[in-house]
Amino acid sequence: MKLVIANKNYSSWSMRPWLAAKAAGITFDEEMIWLRRPETAALIRVQSPNGRVPALIDGDTIVFESIAILEYLAEVAPALWPENPGERAHARSISAEMHAGFLPLRRACPMNIKRRPASIALDADVQANVERVIDLIAGCRARFGRDGAFLFGQAFSNADAMWAPVVNRLHVYDIPVPPIVRRYMDAVMATPMWREWEEAALAETEIIADIDAVA
Amino acid sequence: MKLVIANKNYSSWSMRPWLAAKAAGITFDEEMIWLRRPETAALIRVQSPNGRVPALIDGDTIVFESIAILEYLAEVAPALWPENPGERAHARSISAEMHAGFLPLRRACPMNIKRRPASIALDADVQANVERVIDLIAGCRARFGRDGAFLFGQAFSNADAMWAPVVNRLHVYDIPVPPIVRRYMDAVMATPMWREWEEAALAETEIIADIDAVA
Ligand SMILES: N[C@@H](CCC(=O)N[C@@H](CS)C(=O)NCC(=O)O)C(=O)O
Ligand SMILES: N[C@@H](CCC(=O)N[C@@H](CS)C(=O)NCC(=O)O)C(=O)O
Repeated sequence: MKLVIANKNYSSWSMRPWLAAKAAGITFDEEMIWLRRPETAALIRVQSPNGRVPALIDGDTIVFESIAILEYLAEVAPALWPENPGERAHARSISAEMHAGFLPLRRACPMNIKRRPASIALDADVQANVERVIDLIAGCRARFGRDGAFLFGQAFSNADAMWAPVVNRLHVYDIPVPPIVRRYMDAVMATPMWREWEEAALAETEIIADIDAVA
Repeated sequence: MKLVIANKNYSSWSMRPWLAAKAAGITFDEEMIWLRRPETAALIRVQSPNGRVPALIDGDTIVFESIAILEYLAEVAPALWPENPGERAHARSISAEMHAGFLPLRRACPMNIKRRPASIALDADVQANVERVIDLIAGCRARFGRDGAFLFGQAFSNADAMWAPVVNRLHVYDIPVPPIVRRYMDAVMATPMWREWEEAALAETEIIADIDAVA
């Protein structure tokens, strides 16, 4: 299997399946395509028919769209979804909401691993997204977290992967969150796969100036 | 199981899991919430924690987001996804692309079952969406359609359900498509579940004026 991704510092979509595959112990090759270069679009299109990364290539099969890749990984490693059907349905619901939603937050607060935590002004739409994010994380932790640190307990699931870039956003834009959410964020950022991704992001020298300029 | 939906004439998201459940022979109750009324938001929020329809309620479990509902239905009726793993991955990829994408097309050409086919001017972004839609349908039919009429052959799948509102859009905004796509559209619109949905939509008296005014 080969996972085609973009800049680890900036590519929130790439991070999701990468973390999930690592969490599940699935080995894969990776190929990096740098965003915002003249050749970016052409390089992506060679690998990925929707013109975007991530894409997972497994023999003849090209899986695109992060949530479809997560489902593909879960067929190899079923523990990526909670075992209980009701919890699995909730995990898929919140993952799907992340896949299609939270546009104001995603636009205003782009993922940026290197950013030093510093707050910015949030407009009402972004603020509404933040409230929904906090509700969903806190609600999930309270109902399904049990004795584990993740959304559905001890195992890092596809839902945690899908939500990981939002953990970075809450952290680096220094958005006030209740303790139950802060503890969750700290747990995600302490996982070995997060650290590995972060270390690689910190080592990147590519700069996307308008993302770094968010203030 | 109860499926909470909105106006059959206009609610493209509601249509998706409704068609899939019918195609799979899953019985369910339905509850209609009319869009754009003063009480709409409050009525939805009682049933669906993300404030949107569709939502599927099965005992204690509330499944929201159309693609998560389709996965839930496929756990009951696995034939809703293609049996071959590579085809299943492709079906999920194009379903996920529909879930999060095609915003220009969705905005410019809202689903409207009652509309008499009539073309409108399409801007470049919508036109690019249309080209991608045609490519995906034609490509899928050519590679996986075999002797059946649907995207992945003889069985109406979750991917067909996810793409069904786009069939309506291509049809009622009279958008030029190649014969392979036209045949696919006709097959979808001839299914018993499409006809049942259409008949109910035609019987509705609720009007959303700005959608009807698209010209
Ligand atoms: N819905 C897609 C979104 C993927 C996406 O937007 N990827 C960005 C990078 S994070 C991309 O490929 N952009 C292409 C470009 O900038 O040329 C998914 O879930 O994978
Ligand atoms: N991503 C959601 C989209 C659902 C959606 O946008 N539903 C619309 C109706 S088609 C809605 O509930 N709108 C709420 C309102 O208008 O108050 C899904 O896949 O289910």
